Amino acid sequence: MKKILILNGPNLNLQGKRDTNIYGTTTFEEYTAQLSQRYANKVEIDYLQSNIEGELINAIHASVGHYDGIVFNAGGYTHTSVALRDAISAVSTPVVEVHISSILAREEFRHISMLAPVAKGSIMGFGLDSYRLGIESLID
Amino acid sequence: MKKILILNGPNLNLQGKRDTNIYGTTTFEEYTAQLSQRYANKVEIDYLQSNIEGELINAIHASVGHYDGIVFNAGGYTHTSVALRDAISAVSTPVVEVHISSILAREEFRHISMLAPVAKGSIMGFGLDSYRLGIESLID
Amino acid sequence: MKKILILNGPNLNLQGKRDTNIYGTTTFEEYTAQLSQRYANKVEIDYLQSNIEGELINAIHASVGHYDGIVFNAGGYTHTSVALRDAISAVSTPVVEVHISSILAREEFRHISMLAPVAKGSIMGFGLDSYRLGIESLID
Amino acid sequence: MKKILILNGPNLNLQGKRDTNIYGTTTFEEYTAQLSQRYANKVEIDYLQSNIEGELINAIHASVGHYDGIVFNAGGYTHTSVALRDAISAVSTPVVEVHISSILAREEFRHISMLAPVAKGSIMGFGLDSYRLGIESLID
Amino acid sequence: MKKILILNGPNLNLQGKRDTNIYGTTTFEEYTAQLSQRYANKVEIDYLQSNIEGELINAIHASVGHYDGIVFNAGGYTHTSVALRDAISAVSTPVVEVHISSILAREEFRHISMLAPVAKGSIMGFGLDSYRLGIESLID
Amino acid sequence: MKKILILNGPNLNLQGKRDTNIYGTTTFEEYTAQLSQRYANKVEIDYLQSNIEGELINAIHASVGHYDGIVFNAGGYTHTSVALRDAISAVSTPVVEVHISSILAREEFRHISMLAPVAKGSIMGFGLDSYRLGIESLID
Amino acid sequence: MKKILILNGPNLNLQGKRDTNIYGTTTFEEYTAQLSQRYANKVEIDYLQSNIEGELINAIHASVGHYDGIVFNAGGYTHTSVALRDAISAVSTPVVEVHISSILAREEFRHISMLAPVAKGSIMGFGLDSYRLGIESLID
Amino acid sequence: MKKILILNGPNLNLQGKRDTNIYGTTTFEEYTAQLSQRYANKVEIDYLQSNIEGELINAIHASVGHYDGIVFNAGGYTHTSVALRDAISAVSTPVVEVHISSILAREEFRHISMLAPVAKGSIMGFGLDSYRLGIESLID
Amino acid sequence: MKKILILNGPNLNLQGKRDTNIYGTTTFEEYTAQLSQRYANKVEIDYLQSNIEGELINAIHASVGHYDGIVFNAGGYTHTSVALRDAISAVSTPVVEVHISSILAREEFRHISMLAPVAKGSIMGFGLDSYRLGIESLID
Amino acid sequence: MKKILILNGPNLNLQGKRDTNIYGTTTFEEYTAQLSQRYANKVEIDYLQSNIEGELINAIHASVGHYDGIVFNAGGYTHTSVALRDAISAVSTPVVEVHISSILAREEFRHISMLAPVAKGSIMGFGLDSYRLGIESLID
Amino acid sequence: MKKILILNGPNLNLQGKRDTNIYGTTTFEEYTAQLSQRYANKVEIDYLQSNIEGELINAIHASVGHYDGIVFNAGGYTHTSVALRDAISAVSTPVVEVHISSILAREEFRHISMLAPVAKGSIMGFGLDSYRLGIESLID
Amino acid sequence: MKKILILNGPNLNLQGKRDTNIYGTTTFEEYTAQLSQRYANKVEIDYLQSNIEGELINAIHASVGHYDGIVFNAGGYTHTSVALRDAISAVSTPVVEVHISSILAREEFRHISMLAPVAKGSIMGFGLDSYRLGIESLID
Repeated sequence: MKKILILNGPNLNLQGKRDTNIYGTTTFEEYTAQLSQRYANKVEIDYLQSNIEGELINAIHASVGHYDGIVFNAGGYTHTSVALRDAISAVSTPVVEVHISSILAREEFRHISMLAPVAKGSIMGFGLDSYRLGIESLID
Repeated sequence: MKKILILNGPNLNLQGKRDTNIYGTTTFEEYTAQLSQRYANKVEIDYLQSNIEGELINAIHASVGHYDGIVFNAGGYTHTSVALRDAISAVSTPVVEVHISSILAREEFRHISMLAPVAKGSIMGFGLDSYRLGIESLID
Repeated sequence: MKKILILNGPNLNLQGKRDTNIYGTTTFEEYTAQLSQRYANKVEIDYLQSNIEGELINAIHASVGHYDGIVFNAGGYTHTSVALRDAISAVSTPVVEVHISSILAREEFRHISMLAPVAKGSIMGFGLDSYRLGIESLID
Repeated sequence: MKKILILNGPNLNLQGKRDTNIYGTTTFEEYTAQLSQRYANKVEIDYLQSNIEGELINAIHASVGHYDGIVFNAGGYTHTSVALRDAISAVSTPVVEVHISSILAREEFRHISMLAPVAKGSIMGFGLDSYRLGIESLID
Repeated sequence: MKKILILNGPNLNLQGKRDTNIYGTTTFEEYTAQLSQRYANKVEIDYLQSNIEGELINAIHASVGHYDGIVFNAGGYTHTSVALRDAISAVSTPVVEVHISSILAREEFRHISMLAPVAKGSIMGFGLDSYRLGIESLID
Repeated sequence: MKKILILNGPNLNLQGKRDTNIYGTTTFEEYTAQLSQRYANKVEIDYLQSNIEGELINAIHASVGHYDGIVFNAGGYTHTSVALRDAISAVSTPVVEVHISSILAREEFRHISMLAPVAKGSIMGFGLDSYRLGIESLID
Repeated sequence: MKKILILNGPNLNLQGKRDTNIYGTTTFEEYTAQLSQRYANKVEIDYLQSNIEGELINAIHASVGHYDGIVFNAGGYTHTSVALRDAISAVSTPVVEVHISSILAREEFRHISMLAPVAKGSIMGFGLDSYRLGIESLID
Repeated sequence: MKKILILNGPNLNLQGKRDTNIYGTTTFEEYTAQLSQRYANKVEIDYLQSNIEGELINAIHASVGHYDGIVFNAGGYTHTSVALRDAISAVSTPVVEVHISSILAREEFRHISMLAPVAKGSIMGFGLDSYRLGIESLID
Repeated sequence: MKKILILNGPNLNLQGKRDTNIYGTTTFEEYTAQLSQRYANKVEIDYLQSNIEGELINAIHASVGHYDGIVFNAGGYTHTSVALRDAISAVSTPVVEVHISSILAREEFRHISMLAPVAKGSIMGFGLDSYRLGIESLID
Repeated sequence: MKKILILNGPNLNLQGKRDTNIYGTTTFEEYTAQLSQRYANKVEIDYLQSNIEGELINAIHASVGHYDGIVFNAGGYTHTSVALRDAISAVSTPVVEVHISSILAREEFRHISMLAPVAKGSIMGFGLDSYRLGIESLID
Repeated sequence: MKKILILNGPNLNLQGKRDTNIYGTTTFEEYTAQLSQRYANKVEIDYLQSNIEGELINAIHASVGHYDGIVFNAGGYTHTSVALRDAISAVSTPVVEVHISSILAREEFRHISMLAPVAKGSIMGFGLDSYRLGIESLID
Repeated sequence: MKKILILNGPNLNLQGKRDTNIYGTTTFEEYTAQLSQRYANKVEIDYLQSNIEGELINAIHASVGHYDGIVFNAGGYTHTSVALRDAISAVSTPVVEVHISSILAREEFRHISMLAPVAKGSIMGFGLDSYRLGIESLID
């Protein structure tokens, strides 16, 4: 059975607690539980969130030997972080980039992803379902 | 049962016939057959390819009332075609943008997608599996 | 009596069929008929639409000796097509560029017209009335 | 009967007095008289010209309640004036932007119109006839 | 007691007369009166508005020896006027730049302020209260 | 009585300890005490500083329900941090952006504020007094 | 004996029929005949022209196994077509890019060739003789 | 005897009154008198200054038939004014562009001169002596 | 004897543990020990690494009075961090910028160093030897 | 019989002496001899190389009256030299620009040719054969 | 009596020998003789020309102690040469930049002068008379 | 014993002769002698300077087989010279790029080094000591 880490960057801890009429009231803790149940026989799923760029780097480093893949939403760090890009390049763990909305459909400064060139692949725009598709891409 | 169109743009008719050591010998006709079998109870899948931009526009127009979604790889037209973007905007059929490789990891002129802002979502970098993830995103 | 071609590019075949609350239910076939009636003693008006860039080029080439002017809405090809620009430059038929909405008031990638520098003139932003003003500009 | 103001910006007071072999000897005073005669039963036409940006703003402000539309050629202020743009946005009078030649066919610094995004529509490249088409667009 | 000039640029004479549901019905004449009352013992406040760039320059020149500071909203001239910048640099009167809305939250051509580098400071985004904060910054 | 947080980003902990001939010897702890005294009946003021971007995000998240406003100087993170911008967007607490000097009067890379478009307003260039004006803007 | 395809893109069907005082009255059909005669013992030359981008892609695909080289003038598609570039990359047939005039000596939007990086070589500026030099480059 | 107009744009009325340690205490009225004396037998020199762009345009228009040349320092309008450029193009009077300091040695936004391409020539960087050299260039 | 801090930014903790065929198996702990030995009589060398930008700022602040110089490799933060630049500017400790490879020979987004303008000097491209040269530059 | 100069710019003196597995061991002296033999009855060929930009200019000046054409590879000066461009413009000798590899397929700073707009034509990408094609273009 | 060097860069040795209908048949040797005569009592004038950038640098270095000023036309090196700029900065001799035509009225790559920011002043567009004005600026 | 060439580009012959209060009175001839003494047992050091770009290229070519490394300061040619870059690429001699001041801390046009990507490494900002560090980097 594969072991996958869902890794969330800045502000994603607020999911389910604000703009609930748009994003719903499901928190990532709850959503991860649902995914765990759905893929019960196939994957073991862990969840980690941090607002601190360096802690996300630490988590990516620590994944080696512990996880078969990371589903990673770097939030606002996506567009500027050379350090996160280097972290992904440095580890052997495959990292799938996901975004709730399409970064290419928002403000121009979000159109660039520093991570996409070093990620295994990128999935964006499907709401929370982007994470499930990320899991799918790692288990098939 | 949902009905989905896999729509391929320029040069994708060569899949399985060139660079077979990299891309394999599976043609899209064969791959579509595999997907049809895998999702036999859930989706009916049609396949269409054209090298002509205007014929792709025609196909998108014609999808209304016939398909529940399009998994669309616009190939080289992805980066410049305002006309394809307008076609996607004009129809009610949800269109998922897919790419075999990550457009953000290739030459700079491929970093822009004219279609992403009007697509339901975008999936790139997973090889042929990008198409299956596109199907997944439309049936869940 | 002058003979004028109304030439429409990609997606304009959908006029009158979608977003009818915004654009109305008048198709270009019907609108052309109205214009023909209004200018009955002055101009004979033909209508042609294609989603294929090369067929629009063919139509411009074919206009020589048959039409006294073209009222041309190149749709999404307006912003990128060097080939259409060259076609207009190559023929003696005067070509008036028209747009339903103002291209300068929409997304930034629509702010450039490849055709304006070689057109007789440009009219934009007046809705369908842009076409009538185009006719006016050719008969006076 | 509608009341329309033809408003001209910098240097247009020289029309008919310089480069008469190119632009003819018709001044705007004479041309306005011709238009008044042609549209005698439909529109009452006034004419105003100033080389001073702020006086053009004043004229746009003063149009409210007095004119049903303005046919406006802002000359060299077209390309840089945020203040004129704001003036047009601020009033309810519909303003049609006109230019004698096509600004998109001249030097690159003329390719931008600050006014087009807030104007009712834009007409350019038809010589003095651009003004008549502007009148047409306001009365139909 | 200090003497301060509130100096307004183009289109700000319309405040209180248009879009009253957004901006309220208070004109600058009335608002200045309120401020005068509020700061009655501390500052004497004058008010001047012009749509003409050169008259604003004249007012800045004339401030020397008459005012202890200017609270200046240059409106649309903010983004392009080298001449106003030079005027502020040339006088000893401290000039505080104010804007009703945040220029950095509007269209991209408004993101640049030619005046900020030579102003004593900049205050933007607080509605009419930006002017009061400007007064505050000059009296403390 | 309102409760306001003064939140300072990187390097602002050095205030009062370096370049004291320019910036004075007042530390932010002392300055906050002065402000508390001045606005004793009107506001309760807390102070927080961190050099770590993610901790600033945490502080903004934590403000909800505890503070009526934040006076925020993000220091060097102002110009690049999408994550801080998203944090401000995500909370209901009004955030006023302040800077000791005018960011538009310094190096070009400081001319952009990622935060201004989502802040309640921006105040810059008044030295430490920028903070007091920020307090003023939140209590009136 | 080698077999070479001369492939012409948009508007080149007009050669010999317009601007004959500049370009001469020789059509490509006639010119190809002259080349065939000149290189009678060395090469067999075919000629194909289309205004439709996708048909040019089709022709490039079809060249495999039939031609030893293509002398290709993509006309206006040269500057923007990622799809044609991909087509050239995808086939084993060597493609020589030719242009009648020097694209680097015309308008700035013609200075970029999307095809040059994947072509065997590029020849421009020699009038019709560019095609002959293309033939030369393929037979030596 | 030739007749020359020295025409000065915004803020140049302050010459001799501010920064006198740098620019000296000579006003333009005094300096023009000195030049008149020096070139007494060769040129008659008039002087005009305005802070209003449109009045400078008026002065250029009015020069036709009255002056044999204009020595013009457009001050801050140099860098942005299309209207002044058009005014210079429109008249037959030769206009020599002068600047006290070198615009290319100051801030980047001053590096562009809208007027140089239509001026007879440009002289910059020689202090007030730039004006004398301008006179020299017109009389030789 | 001088006291020098080697300060390493994000991902440099992986040195010696990954890509050992390229970078060797020497960790920074071991390398620092070697340097300490080599410069035993001249310098005392400490080593610190953090993936967190704010902790690097803290370390730079803390260096004052403790170290005679810092040899600093900011890794991925080099290219974007205004906050680290401000930290270096704020302290009196001389900071030498080092990089293992030449940042100017890698991807374009690495060509900019935010730190170089405020560093004592920059050394790049010599592998680990860049650090030794940094030590050399501080002791001579 | 025509007389042609092969003129080579910087570093081309190393041909045949370095990277001989890629470029072969043929020096330009040898290659020119081969070309002379091949075109024995048609052209007399001279060869000149210099690493000094100004000597290349001298050679171009000196060609007038001595050569019927120059086949010119300006090497690294191609991309920046306004002086060489002016030299080619100044002489009546036709100059054909050649490059061994395609400048458009290498680093971005090589994509611009300052010489192409003033050359008779450009040939690139055919290895040493580019020179022979240059000869061909001058004798036909 | 002052001693001035007229220093000419690349291609200016052709003056008087090409395009004589535009530039006249006066060579710089002859023109310098005329200037020497005109300013016989005031200046001694030497003339030097080189097509080699480094020789121009040498001449500037050598001017110290020998000349009271240089009238310098750097020709095509004007727009790119950092080395010539550094040479002018390095010497105490005042250098006046001159150009026969206005560099701001020609192609865009000529709009930049690397030399103007370090020159005493710049004079352009007056034909050969630019040199005389340069002499004038140095003797007054 | 290694043999190293110190190669200096334009204007560096003036070191020790101008701005001696900043740069000191040590010429490169003297400084090289000091270095030779310091590294007497390790390296033999030669010195060469030229203001002519092509002579620097010649020196780089000639280094093969004679020197074990070059310490190269290309001065103003650093930022634009493709030819010097190609020369460094073409030879096997390792070339270390040095600069007296940090090119990234000066004007923006000096921020680019054409040489860094092909140099062994780069050292900048340490004054003359940059050269010694360059020697160090080649002998260790």
